[in-house]
Amino acid sequence: MSKDKILDRVESPLDLKTLSLDEMNQLAGEIRQMIIDVVSKNGGHLAPNLGVVELTIALHRVFDSPRDKIIFDVGHQAYIHKILTGRKEVFPTLRKYKGISGFPKRQESEHDAFGVGHSSTSVSAADGMAVARDLKGEDYHVVAIIGDGAMTGGMSFEALNHVGDTGRRIIIILNDNEMSISKNVGAMSQYLYQLRTGETYNRLKHNVENWLGGMEHGADVLEVIDRVKAGVKYLVMPESIFEYMGIKYFGPVDGHNIEALLPMLAAAKKEEGPVLIHVITKKGKGYAPAEERPNEFHGTGPFDPATGEKIVKPGTPPSYTSIFGKTLVELAENDKSIVAITAAMPDGTGISAFAKKFPDRFFDVGIAEQHAVTFAAGLAAEGIKPVTAIYSTFMQRAYDQVIHDVCMQQLPVKLCMDRGGLVGDDGYTHHGVFDYAFLLPMPHMVIMAPKDENELRHMLFTAVEYQGGPISLRYPRGSGTGADCSEPLHVLPLGKAEKLRDGTDVSIWAIGSMVPEAERTADLLQEAGVSASVVNMRFAKPLDEEFLLAEANAVPAIVTMEEGVVTGGVGEMVMQTLNRHNLLKSVSVLTLGIPDEFISQGDRKLLMRDIGLMPDQMAQQILAWLGKA
Amino acid sequence: MSKDKILDRVESPLDLKTLSLDEMNQLAGEIRQMIIDVVSKNGGHLAPNLGVVELTIALHRVFDSPRDKIIFDVGHQAYIHKILTGRKEVFPTLRKYKGISGFPKRQESEHDAFGVGHSSTSVSAADGMAVARDLKGEDYHVVAIIGDGAMTGGMSFEALNHVGDTGRRIIIILNDNEMSISKNVGAMSQYLYQLRTGETYNRLKHNVENWLGGMEHGADVLEVIDRVKAGVKYLVMPESIFEYMGIKYFGPVDGHNIEALLPMLAAAKKEEGPVLIHVITKKGKGYAPAEERPNEFHGTGPFDPATGEKIVKPGTPPSYTSIFGKTLVELAENDKSIVAITAAMPDGTGISAFAKKFPDRFFDVGIAEQHAVTFAAGLAAEGIKPVTAIYSTFMQRAYDQVIHDVCMQQLPVKLCMDRGGLVGDDGYTHHGVFDYAFLLPMPHMVIMAPKDENELRHMLFTAVEYQGGPISLRYPRGSGTGADCSEPLHVLPLGKAEKLRDGTDVSIWAIGSMVPEAERTADLLQEAGVSASVVNMRFAKPLDEEFLLAEANAVPAIVTMEEGVVTGGVGEMVMQTLNRHNLLKSVSVLTLGIPDEFISQGDRKLLMRDIGLMPDQMAQQILAWLGKA
Repeated sequence: MSKDKILDRVESPLDLKTLSLDEMNQLAGEIRQMIIDVVSKNGGHLAPNLGVVELTIALHRVFDSPRDKIIFDVGHQAYIHKILTGRKEVFPTLRKYKGISGFPKRQESEHDAFGVGHSSTSVSAADGMAVARDLKGEDYHVVAIIGDGAMTGGMSFEALNHVGDTGRRIIIILNDNEMSISKNVGAMSQYLYQLRTGETYNRLKHNVENWLGGMEHGADVLEVIDRVKAGVKYLVMPESIFEYMGIKYFGPVDGHNIEALLPMLAAAKKEEGPVLIHVITKKGKGYAPAEERPNEFHGTGPFDPATGEKIVKPGTPPSYTSIFGKTLVELAENDKSIVAITAAMPDGTGISAFAKKFPDRFFDVGIAEQHAVTFAAGLAAEGIKPVTAIYSTFMQRAYDQVIHDVCMQQLPVKLCMDRGGLVGDDGYTHHGVFDYAFLLPMPHMVIMAPKDENELRHMLFTAVEYQGGPISLRYPRGSGTGADCSEPLHVLPLGKAEKLRDGTDVSIWAIGSMVPEAERTADLLQEAGVSASVVNMRFAKPLDEEFLLAEANAVPAIVTMEEGVVTGGVGEMVMQTLNRHNLLKSVSVLTLGIPDEFISQGDRKLLMRDIGLMPDQMAQQILAWLGKA
Repeated sequence: MSKDKILDRVESPLDLKTLSLDEMNQLAGEIRQMIIDVVSKNGGHLAPNLGVVELTIALHRVFDSPRDKIIFDVGHQAYIHKILTGRKEVFPTLRKYKGISGFPKRQESEHDAFGVGHSSTSVSAADGMAVARDLKGEDYHVVAIIGDGAMTGGMSFEALNHVGDTGRRIIIILNDNEMSISKNVGAMSQYLYQLRTGETYNRLKHNVENWLGGMEHGADVLEVIDRVKAGVKYLVMPESIFEYMGIKYFGPVDGHNIEALLPMLAAAKKEEGPVLIHVITKKGKGYAPAEERPNEFHGTGPFDPATGEKIVKPGTPPSYTSIFGKTLVELAENDKSIVAITAAMPDGTGISAFAKKFPDRFFDVGIAEQHAVTFAAGLAAEGIKPVTAIYSTFMQRAYDQVIHDVCMQQLPVKLCMDRGGLVGDDGYTHHGVFDYAFLLPMPHMVIMAPKDENELRHMLFTAVEYQGGPISLRYPRGSGTGADCSEPLHVLPLGKAEKLRDGTDVSIWAIGSMVPEAERTADLLQEAGVSASVVNMRFAKPLDEEFLLAEANAVPAIVTMEEGVVTGGVGEMVMQTLNRHNLLKSVSVLTLGIPDEFISQGDRKLLMRDIGLMPDQMAQQILAWLGKA
């Protein structure tokens, strides 16, 4: 049976206003299909979006974007929003180079009220916008859509505390799917479960009944209670945790029932102060593989839409993440003092296997990087070895904790930062390009980055064995280089670089993911008649100063290569070191890395080309710089 | 009447175990006096400590430090702890150069279980230590003492969420004095007030009575209720917000009543899971001026203990903080779009006057720097000008928000960082030395620092007028240079430096607080026959590249001076810029600033001397470097 597509008629949120309930439900199905089609090709955040199709339709039906401000927390669930706000034609370019972003972006549309990528910022931004509205004497609505996972981030609590205090008119949609990315953790999540199921109510009612039953007149009271159920509820559960905080609580409501959602959203519009609507959704709703395995389909690469099977290029080497996870298990078998900590990313960081094997030594603290790092500091202070696995970009959240709780006390916390460098399709909010620059100025911090997945193994072992203070390693997203990983583990000498090839014209000092690129660049230079030595730095801090000075005395030019920001980065550390030894008069330095701009999205190679970091480009630049182009 | 001093008998916490209640109360009085004596001379955190004298005695009576781990949040209330744990003899050196720290410090004593200075870390650290204990099969207690102010920091919530989830045996002492540093704000604080006063209970009881009163058998029920008050309480307030989170709630208890505290602490020791004891204290307790003006006596300089009058050296110029506050009011009078944001520091940041004059445009968000910055981003996104005043060291907490919410969206948030550079007596947790290094790599960020308090005025005006993106300024703690501040305000040209004097041998590029030191250094160089030009950089970013290149072509040597870490700092930015223009072969560069270590406490000048940044030292170093010593 062929039907007219409702989606064909929806060019903007205005077109939703006249749809019937049936049409909205049909539209939900069409959008679901479009998302499955595009994400199965491009990869992306499938399950979170499938969970909010009806909710997003209802929001755009009730509110008037862009006049009303709709703010998505994390933002990986904004695909429907994009489709409904004039971007359905370009939706197939999702996450592609020069395509539309997988996250809301102010630069992309006036309907994207606040850009995002990291978690737990929406209520803060909404609070600011609501205050601005009131100061300007305007009257638009501000709506934040936040998941129960993002709610565990401390920043959300700071914002709720402020919102509850000032009493501004804000609507918070709590999208409760019992998941952050993996199964949700934390007391708040248990509490939400109780709200959802009415368990608190039932448990308390039972207690009250027992208590009253044993008393004189108790039976009368129970009779009263039985006749007025609503009253009992009022008696035993007078306020939700949100109402304790000054925020009116509506719900729970089924987030897949548009008919139920519309009146609740409409009622929230009429409130004078902050309101939270508790919406229950199912991650992956409407696509069986994603409903069954929401973790796997949270963020996914391309897959076969018919079966949900992942499309993996044959012969792809294992990822850095998987080698990290495997090595951690291997180490933990021999060292009972090793524990692993994740901030809601057991799969993403590769420590699920550890979690399964050593559940007592595994800690998922929720989306709470600040707590993760100081929790690790507490463990390290008492002689435990905390391996703290947090993506480079999310470690930014714990910047102060790394300085104040870890480095200042010289505690042997092990920071393992996956997704170092450009991450590709997720784009600018997710690139891990600041870590070298933010860790280098921290006293006592050791900073490593492996040239390949085999070296990652040795670095993890080195980190675990090193008890002199904090130590970090960062490694890239995606598949490794295919290096042989059967070598027995050994500890790397602290602060020592590795020379990979000799040369006489220029010495390339590369770190981490740039080491293979340095080798390729050296090959190209060789073809152009320039002899380049290549050094695998291994350590950004402490720098192998002795070797650097020797090299600076042996060759006239040094090039640094890092997949991180040049400003404050490893190259500047090299330059500073050479300068301290008065060597900059005799040796020239070229620092290659990420320029002073936010890097866009798309295939990593395309992005690297945009900023001139592909081997052919670097070879050309070096030749020109040496006056040999 | 002369009495034997109990304190003379207390060398360690063990000596508390045999004291009678009367003796403990007498001890409290003696300790109070000792603290007033020392802080009136040395300055320090008076009111927070006077508020926890009895509580700390009770803690050390019940628990066995250092076996049991006692962790103070923020740590400015640990003076009694220090006195009781073997440091009473050295207590008069509090906060002095080479004296004992004003905060707990692992390096100082085995009784200082976890070092601290910033807020909201204690529960995370306690959680880590409790897990370590259980993994090691030990059975000590872990106690975190946290104020209601520190509880507003999101990190505390992240930790409570995890603690409530894992159910580890931890004792959390909520030291509720209704204050953070200034009067506390936020919904959580209102909630604690209700718990404290029983207001929720009373309000709900009243509602219940009304409801039942109107019903058949209602009178019977009321009769039952009246006879069993405890039962009613159970009925209408079944769980505190903490119990919702899986943490058992004890209290509230009077924190100045040792007799009441002891059994409650003893009971908490017997619990199998996490417990929170709600302790009510009064900031400044026992010293009338501090009880009356707890804000003023939170952190104080020297004062006359008899009257509480501050001892101010006559002729001290107004502080940077006060000039900032005054200028902000002046600007806000003419520009209604200016709002001011503080994270619990209206006095410390100097915006109290603004708060009084423009209450609708003033926002104290509590100890919540992350929210403060993203809240500002939300305001800026809607055309308001948010002046966000946060100490340099606390801005570290919002590192990710500055990148992700402000810079990435190029929003015109104005970050005003007081306490940039070395702060003196508060020591290493409070020095504001990382800000240049962490802001420089952020795309779109403008970074300013004034040479004196008059330039601060113009920079604040420049920040408020600049709507091209984020802009920051940092200025030092303490009194200004005495500069004339009557000049009409003007906007400084973006990215333009100011030449203060001409010279031919060396050019000194100084920023912010180092500009006056650069001038003094140049004087000394002049005496030694070296002609130095002095440049007031004003902007670390964008750098005045044109002028720098001209200067590099005119003089053979450039010296940079910054009161911030050298690694990743302004000097490296200068060096990198010169290198990009191939000038490092012809011009020598010396970068002066904070070395790669955590700087201790004491008079700023003594600290500056320790690291070689006093003008005579810098002049000597420059002469040696130029080969002219």
